[in-house]
Amino acid sequence: MGAVGHEMIKTLEQRKFPVGTLVPLDVAAMAGKTVRYNGADVIVQEAKKGAFVGVDVAIFSAGADASLVLAPVAVAEGAIVVDNSSAWRMDPKVPLVIPEVNPQALDAHNGIIANPNCSTIQMLVALKPIHDAFKIKRVVVSTYQAVSGTGGKAITELTEQAKAFASGKPIVANVYPRQILFNALPQIDVFLDNGYTKEEMKMVNETKKILDPAIEVSPTAVRVAVYRGHSEAINVQTEKPFSIPDVRALLAKAPGIKVMDDPSKLVYPTALDAEGKDETFIGRLRADPTIPNGLNMWVVSDNLRKGAALNAVQIAETLIERKLLK
Amino acid sequence: MGAVGHEMIKTLEQRKFPVGTLVPLDVAAMAGKTVRYNGADVIVQEAKKGAFVGVDVAIFSAGADASLVLAPVAVAEGAIVVDNSSAWRMDPKVPLVIPEVNPQALDAHNGIIANPNCSTIQMLVALKPIHDAFKIKRVVVSTYQAVSGTGGKAITELTEQAKAFASGKPIVANVYPRQILFNALPQIDVFLDNGYTKEEMKMVNETKKILDPAIEVSPTAVRVAVYRGHSEAINVQTEKPFSIPDVRALLAKAPGIKVMDDPSKLVYPTALDAEGKDETFIGRLRADPTIPNGLNMWVVSDNLRKGAALNAVQIAETLIERKLLK
Repeated sequence: MGAVGHEMIKTLEQRKFPVGTLVPLDVAAMAGKTVRYNGADVIVQEAKKGAFVGVDVAIFSAGADASLVLAPVAVAEGAIVVDNSSAWRMDPKVPLVIPEVNPQALDAHNGIIANPNCSTIQMLVALKPIHDAFKIKRVVVSTYQAVSGTGGKAITELTEQAKAFASGKPIVANVYPRQILFNALPQIDVFLDNGYTKEEMKMVNETKKILDPAIEVSPTAVRVAVYRGHSEAINVQTEKPFSIPDVRALLAKAPGIKVMDDPSKLVYPTALDAEGKDETFIGRLRADPTIPNGLNMWVVSDNLRKGAALNAVQIAETLIERKLLK
Repeated sequence: MGAVGHEMIKTLEQRKFPVGTLVPLDVAAMAGKTVRYNGADVIVQEAKKGAFVGVDVAIFSAGADASLVLAPVAVAEGAIVVDNSSAWRMDPKVPLVIPEVNPQALDAHNGIIANPNCSTIQMLVALKPIHDAFKIKRVVVSTYQAVSGTGGKAITELTEQAKAFASGKPIVANVYPRQILFNALPQIDVFLDNGYTKEEMKMVNETKKILDPAIEVSPTAVRVAVYRGHSEAINVQTEKPFSIPDVRALLAKAPGIKVMDDPSKLVYPTALDAEGKDETFIGRLRADPTIPNGLNMWVVSDNLRKGAALNAVQIAETLIERKLLK
């Protein structure tokens, strides 16, 4: 089970999600192993046809290929699928949901619900209250993304590179095309024909689907040597004027957000502050005087929590709230 | 002698700068020590009144406080000062020079010439050819800056944090307000009343002084766990239209620039590629379709070389070329 799978089980426990029976599923090779859930060992079963009979909600974090095959199987067997991969996100019949942003999209679901990309989720949690109040026109965003977004192998690679460095041994790169330790790689996921990476275009397209098709996003996605917690430098232009204290107050009372913004006391969020936390942290709020209604801010969240596991579990919670479970 | 001082001596050697006599100066406590220059040990003398008699060019990298005191002393004793600190940069009587960008500004010097901030230098080397051809209106820039910009103590701190991590010991932060290893800190230098840091406002103000007062810069300066090499995600809007192949060709033939931009082969620059190199490296060139005449790019350079020592030595070389030395 991957990093997000474990985080999902932990999140179900922590939030006391009303689980009748937990059915952990994985590839055949992992079947028979156990995972710890609420103090008991639960046996992992193979994710295959038949495994979803009697399941109400199936939370998937198995990658796009597995999801394309198994999500329809799960739906046919009666489950509602909350899928963490990119497989279904842009399918017009599939709601793409951040519960703080567009919970109403769940009502039109057809069995599969998609969890957005990690870097999109935290950006839109931060942008939603601003958009509602001042109407966002354009966003320029640069990311500082953690290696855990790539998965367990990347976490191991960063640790091995740090240990090799500390002991004076050669640093080996396998997961990433270059050394990630003491470096910043301007590439996340594969390159597309327009010169942007797939990760960057997820931020563009998912923002339009979730928040507003009129919002333009110009992204640069960068991997840094951080384990957990994506940071984003976000430049925003709105249609309506605002004051920074207004924006700060608005964000402070918005769901899922914690404002950490007091430069005089060196208060601002960093990736290490966000590790293991549920909130999207916002700091460095300041006017951008180079355009009308310009704003700069710094947004940090744990990519495995709000960026993946937590958002998926919140979707399941919202299905219950909205009485969408059979 | 600090990291930049050593880099300056190395740069003088490598570029075969026509040094008659090298006079290394430092604080009193360092006087009597030696530095290696062209295979010989040269005795360090105290930087004080009288030390600059007979000196043609005094390259300073001593911090703003020392520079405010000693630069006028050096000028009074007949030297031309090339100062790497922020002390004189915004003084209207002091040229602020990047030789590839505004060498002509040297002609009006009054004894002191300022070396721009590291993050400004590499940005403007990249922007100059674009501005000349297409007239830049606005720039949004997010930086990924190396700890060597802070100095030797920060380099040591990053190493000690990495070693502590590798051996399972507690990680201690002294130089930076938070742990820099496995983190990204959205603060470089002190905060100003407008919510921006001093580093960020250097990028704003120095761009106007060096390249064009009409160019608006909206910056976010971030420290990452990199030893050497600043990276910058730069979003540009120009007045005139361009094509990406045009921009790529323009940059490829511009002085001081090396284009590394072939996404299909995963060719793009990273901080580790720039270490010890003179060029400003540019990659990830792509149109930004969210605005008219929009461009995104990724600019990397060694902050101790082009960002400090090399640019200062190039200023001295340009003084000779322009026959400005007495």
